[in-house]
This record gives sequence, C-alpha cells and structure tokens, in this order.
Amino acid sequence: MNLKVIAFDADDTLWVNEPYFRQTEERFYELLGEYSSQHELERELLKIEIANLSLYGYGIKGFILSMIETALTVTDNNISTDVVGQIIDLGKQMLNQPIELLDGVEDVLKSLKEKYRLVVATKGDLLDQERKLKKSGLSHYFHHIEIMSEKDDANYLKLIKHLDIQRCELMMVGNSLKSDILPVLNIGGFAIHVPYHITWAHEHIEDSIDNERFKSVDCIKSVLELL
Amino acid sequence: MNLKVIAFDADDTLWVNEPYFRQTEERFYELLGEYSSQHELERELLKIEIANLSLYGYGIKGFILSMIETALTVTDNNISTDVVGQIIDLGKQMLNQPIELLDGVEDVLKSLKEKYRLVVATKGDLLDQERKLKKSGLSHYFHHIEIMSEKDDANYLKLIKHLDIQRCELMMVGNSLKSDILPVLNIGGFAIHVPYHITWAHEHIEDSIDNERFKSVDCIKSVLELL
Repeated sequence: MNLKVIAFDADDTLWVNEPYFRQTEERFYELLGEYSSQHELERELLKIEIANLSLYGYGIKGFILSMIETALTVTDNNISTDVVGQIIDLGKQMLNQPIELLDGVEDVLKSLKEKYRLVVATKGDLLDQERKLKKSGLSHYFHHIEIMSEKDDANYLKLIKHLDIQRCELMMVGNSLKSDILPVLNIGGFAIHVPYHITWAHEHIEDSIDNERFKSVDCIKSVLELL
Repeated sequence: MNLKVIAFDADDTLWVNEPYFRQTEERFYELLGEYSSQHELERELLKIEIANLSLYGYGIKGFILSMIETALTVTDNNISTDVVGQIIDLGKQMLNQPIELLDGVEDVLKSLKEKYRLVVATKGDLLDQERKLKKSGLSHYFHHIEIMSEKDDANYLKLIKHLDIQRCELMMVGNSLKSDILPVLNIGGFAIHVPYHITWAHEHIEDSIDNERFKSVDCIKSVLELL
C-alpha cells in the first residue's frame, strides 16, 4: 500500500445523520396516524422517495417533497393543509439540526492528517453538506470536500483525476457498502467499512465482500490500527 | 491578458432558464388566483424565497418548497391540498424541462476550446445542474464543471486553486452582474457580461461597473471579438 489520500464519507461516518431522518419519519407517521398505518406510510414513503431519486437526488429537500407527496397520496388529497405546513417545518428543523460528531472521529483525523491528504466524499444537497462540514468544526482537517450527486464508479474516477493520484493511492472510509465501498473497490482503490447501526433501506446490499483491498472494522478508531 | 481558463455561467448564459421560472410562477398565480392578487403573491413568494435561501440554497427544489409555503401563508392554510399536489407537479415539470441552448453558444464554445480550457461555473441543485449539462450536449467542450452553493469571492478563489491558475488567468462570462461579474473582478479576474432579457429580482444590482478587466457585450457571439 502506498496511500496518498484518505477519503471519508460524512453522514453516519463522521457525524450522526440517519437517526434524524428516522426521528422525522416517526413524527411524520404520527402526523398522519389517523389516515394510515405506520406500515403503509413507511412503504409508501420509501416507494415515493425512490421514484423521485432520479429527479430530486439525495438530501433533505427531496425528502421533504417526498413526505408531502406521500401525505397527499395516502390520503387521496384529503388532509388538512396544516399537516403540509408541519411537514415543511420538520424539514427545516432537520436542516437546522446541530452536528453531533461520532465517537473517535476527531482523534482519527488528527492522527491521519500527519501522513495523508484527507478529503470528504459525500452525496446530498450541496449547501446542506457544506453547512454541516462547517458546523462540524472539522473543515481544517480536509484538503478538499467532494459532493457527488451519486457515489458511483464514474464520480470516484473524477475525484481521483481531480486529486491527481493513482487509483491505488486512494482509500475510502465509510458506512455504506453500496456507496462508499463497492464503487471504490471496483475502480481499484482501498476501502474500509465502518458500519453504522442504522442504514437507509435504499443503501442495503445483500453481497458479502471478498477483496484484499477491503477491510471492515467495528469503529472508526480501528482505522488507525490498519494504517 | 494571458488567459488560460474561460468559465461560463450556465443558466441564461448557455441555455434558457429564468423564463421557465417565470412561466411556473404564472401558473402558480393562476392556481391561487381566487385567494390572492398576483401582486400580493409575487411579493410574498419573493419574500419567502429569500428568507429560505440560506437554508435551501438555489435551485428548483427550494423553489417548489417556497411556492408551497407561500400558498399556505397567503391562504392561512385554507386551500385544497389538490393545489399542493399541482405545485409539486409544476416543479417536476421544471426538472424535466428540455434544454434550449441560447443562440450562438455552440459556435463560441467550439472556437474558444481551441485556445483555452473551458469550464462551467454555476450554482443551484447539484443533480439538476449536472443533468442539464448532460442534456445540453455541451459536456465535451468543458474540462470541468463547478457547481457552487453561492457564487462569491471565496468560491471563485477555490475554483482558481482547483484549476491551478493565477487569478488574472481566469475570465468569467455570464448574465448576472452580482454572481458572475462582481466577485470575479473583486478577486482580480476578467469578466464579460452577456445580459439576458430576464433576471431574477434577487440578482439585480444597482451599481454600474467601471473596471478595465470588465466588458459588456450584447450577445455571446461578441465574446469572440474580444479575445
């Protein structure tokens, strides 16, 4: 291994994210509790989110729009518009959420910064991801932040070109096998999976990974032992 | 002048954009015509858009959310939820809009590509701007696309660092004095203003510009005469 750059996913790798989506979904189910069961709401919301993904992309704004669309769909447009206003407010609360760093993150960044160029590679809303990095207080550890519309092979190759390194000089650290690990292994990079206890259904994959450029660890601190 | 990179704004510089927002606004005023005057709706929508800008950023998704919020506000939540669904549909139509190139754009890019590195520098939703560039068929003219959350001095400086050029080696071409011209002149670059016949109220500025690194032309083809 002759690594030059270590790239970190942001949401649920550096800081808490998915639990806020889950909390918001819980409140959404309560808001619509009199119209539909949680089970049906869950199913309909995920269906609409995935249908809208190619149009809206990832991030909170698309999530708010999909929640509103779900509310209209499951009630056949028969809800009070108050509920729509409350959904918008839920979204604004998410956007204003403070950042809660995951355990050990700062120690790991501090230590790795001495030896490697560190970057953030994330997907989602541009402004929202920039704002979260700023609020996190971690900006100064990173050489660059790359916000991708989709974390696929093509976009990782662009990142490598942009960083002016070889494929085998990149290591990606993240919680999503689908977005952080598989595409990076595909293009010839190294990847470390740091699982998070909650993963969005759309990020689930069934495969087990057998690759000599791949490792899985229990917590981000263990990344230091591998390098 | 020893230019290396020419950066182009995208919306209303390379292709039609603002007229689609205006058309959507017209339909929005019609939808809410029985509740409020166009004048009041216009004022309220702009107020809400600007209030939401720091949270949502630029782009269509934030615009849809602001239209919904305006509809709830001006009617005191007393509208049919059908209207909310129609606003979401208006937004999806905008996201699916075909790209209409502005006159002369392709000739200019073809000619300048021989001599300079060309890039796109735009703001808005990440996925939407990438999709528009792809649909435009212009991608192959550009070395790089930079999508910024805000077109300010700091982000243009980042672009220059990324492109590994001096400030005076950049020229920006765009229709917004506020976003494309003033910040680039501020940081020491060159800028050509190609006005478009419609500008969003939030992009208006009162200043006249007197700077030897600045030129204004009537149409994008005239950029060739200056270089």
